[in-house]
Amino acid sequence: MKVTMSDIEAARRTIAGHVLHTPMLPAPKLSALTGASVLVKYENLQVTNSFKERGALNKLSSLSASDRARGVIAMSAGNHAQALAYHAARLGIPATIVMPVTTPFVKVAATQAHGADVLLDGETLNEAQARAEAIALERGLSLVHPYDDALVIAGQGTIALEMLQEAPDLEMLIIPVGGGGLIAGNAVAARSVAPRIEIIGAEAALYPSVWNALHGENRPCGGPTLAEGIAVKNVGALTFPIVSALVAEIVLVDEVHLERAVNAYLTLQKTMAEGAGAAGLAAMLAKPERFRGRKVGLILCGGNIDPRVLASVMVRELKREDRIVSFRLTIPDRPGVLGQIATRLGELGTNILEVDHRRLFLDVPAKGAKLDVTVETRDRVHAEAVLRALEADGLQLARIEMATAME
Amino acid sequence: MKVTMSDIEAARRTIAGHVLHTPMLPAPKLSALTGASVLVKYENLQVTNSFKERGALNKLSSLSASDRARGVIAMSAGNHAQALAYHAARLGIPATIVMPVTTPFVKVAATQAHGADVLLDGETLNEAQARAEAIALERGLSLVHPYDDALVIAGQGTIALEMLQEAPDLEMLIIPVGGGGLIAGNAVAARSVAPRIEIIGAEAALYPSVWNALHGENRPCGGPTLAEGIAVKNVGALTFPIVSALVAEIVLVDEVHLERAVNAYLTLQKTMAEGAGAAGLAAMLAKPERFRGRKVGLILCGGNIDPRVLASVMVRELKREDRIVSFRLTIPDRPGVLGQIATRLGELGTNILEVDHRRLFLDVPAKGAKLDVTVETRDRVHAEAVLRALEADGLQLARIEMATAME
Repeated sequence: MKVTMSDIEAARRTIAGHVLHTPMLPAPKLSALTGASVLVKYENLQVTNSFKERGALNKLSSLSASDRARGVIAMSAGNHAQALAYHAARLGIPATIVMPVTTPFVKVAATQAHGADVLLDGETLNEAQARAEAIALERGLSLVHPYDDALVIAGQGTIALEMLQEAPDLEMLIIPVGGGGLIAGNAVAARSVAPRIEIIGAEAALYPSVWNALHGENRPCGGPTLAEGIAVKNVGALTFPIVSALVAEIVLVDEVHLERAVNAYLTLQKTMAEGAGAAGLAAMLAKPERFRGRKVGLILCGGNIDPRVLASVMVRELKREDRIVSFRLTIPDRPGVLGQIATRLGELGTNILEVDHRRLFLDVPAKGAKLDVTVETRDRVHAEAVLRALEADGLQLARIEMATAME
Repeated sequence: MKVTMSDIEAARRTIAGHVLHTPMLPAPKLSALTGASVLVKYENLQVTNSFKERGALNKLSSLSASDRARGVIAMSAGNHAQALAYHAARLGIPATIVMPVTTPFVKVAATQAHGADVLLDGETLNEAQARAEAIALERGLSLVHPYDDALVIAGQGTIALEMLQEAPDLEMLIIPVGGGGLIAGNAVAARSVAPRIEIIGAEAALYPSVWNALHGENRPCGGPTLAEGIAVKNVGALTFPIVSALVAEIVLVDEVHLERAVNAYLTLQKTMAEGAGAAGLAAMLAKPERFRGRKVGLILCGGNIDPRVLASVMVRELKREDRIVSFRLTIPDRPGVLGQIATRLGELGTNILEVDHRRLFLDVPAKGAKLDVTVETRDRVHAEAVLRALEADGLQLARIEMATAME
């Protein structure tokens, strides 16, 4: 293996004092939810809100004075870009970040705010990567790969050292898997300190590249995922042999479990996880029997999620719990009916969120109308009672279900 | 004063190991936002997600064996209820919580989940309080007041001890003020350890009870506030003399600053603050010149906010930043116009969220229609450019502004 425990010990000394030693805390409500004893490592509290600073800083610190003067370059539309830009600026090293032209403006601005020169080039990540490599050669810049670099991997591995120092009796670490830098570094560190600890990878089901490589399968990679931070189609040349040797199991997590994990971090643990950051918890929700009764460390590796996406995840979870319910009533189209129904919904203890009163549908009688109603309820039992009460009133009613795919 | 440094030192020893020693961390993005050097104490990471556990546990620990056997009672619809229920259950002490009949079901359930007997009684907090006092007398239960109790105040004061041990050079603490238990305990502790430190109170402008008492004013108290945890109409008999002696200034925070502070904690600091929990940061946003350049400690005292309210706060902030923009177009009512406009909005780089096409308004020409459109934009500059481009296309356009009051 190309990364050893002494590399990680060295990384720890290099980054000490310049990267936050993040808190690790027991998460009693997540423990109750999963039946395990859960500790959370809050890497989302780093300045740029992800663990990527550890690897980026370890790499930057290794550069010679002349390399530093020429500068660094990386391809990234996400957390690696911000981490590298922040620490490069701190060290006075010019940084160029290549992002695909489709990168949201917010991410471009966040990276520019740390002083980096952002170049929008390439339709895809692969095209942007090729462009970054070409510029690196042309201008003599040092390329900082987001995961397939021994110094980057060693930097990420410092997380497990901190965790096992504070809780030497952890039985498992569940670690998100994209390119594999985070899990490779931490697998080396954790298995060195605690040889019997189990390392579990959490990979997005839409991007099962490491799963495929380990199992000799060829499942498709692609599609919109909440966990764009681990949506990686390629397996790392340095990371894969480590994963293959030290990781006990890869758990594939689907979009619904990712959403629920983001929501659970927020509502139970009061902290903001991006999709990739919540992948470890999503694995616990997907395979609870695998973790029940065990002492589990979760690396909450990033917190950069768009507020609009987060708001939508929260509302969708309320719908899943029937705390927001939509239904369609077919009603006689005469004065006073809307008022009667609204009054009745209030008596039943609901709070009306939306009403859409339609007369023009072709499938209603000439003297009828349709009323689409969305209400807040206390919980699933209350929602069920409300719908039964309306039916008992003689109203013709149909639930409107939420789409199960991502909207 | 009825609470001394030695009471707080004693409380610290009593609660050690049973209440989380929460992390305090530098908040670089909040520092950039405010121009101060900001440290945040994460009391929202307690098991019941607020500081209230400190005072409740200190009080419970003081009870005699026979008092414990009879049990405790409190009136609270919020964090005090959950904190007391949790620690009473842990210690095997029966707990009764009286809540007003209007208390949301979620809060009732959360308190019952910790094993407390919840009694819904009284239309208002004052009626529920009277009922709790009556039951305490009748059944010989120990009443645990949420703030006007020396042991509760001493328990809360342990926060500042932890903060000043880790950062002895803090120049100011900004502390939310409701009944005054949190600020009184921490003012005694902080001024004992660091006599020159400034203690600033952050009180909801809708509930200026301490402000009124300090300034001899009679501003009205009432109305719906995001910071219901500090919406207190009465001044504490024990807390007020301490506040009066040791607090440098009370800053009143209005609803917009509370909303922005909750949003800033979430989007910049990746942590969930309830309205009252964000009041300290809201004070910094309301009076930035008072804090600029200073080293400021914020007590993020609670994280219990309804997910629906939080989602609404986030979306409202996006509207305030013009990242979500609504406008009304008056258009000729002929085939193809809607398609043309939708295509144009895409070309301009916006994402359409809502369209409402209306023909029935009385104020449109017989052959006209109105189109209400809500789009996502990249930022304020982009939003402005989009609106100008539509006007340059010859469309008649009016912005639809967000209501400034709470919706």
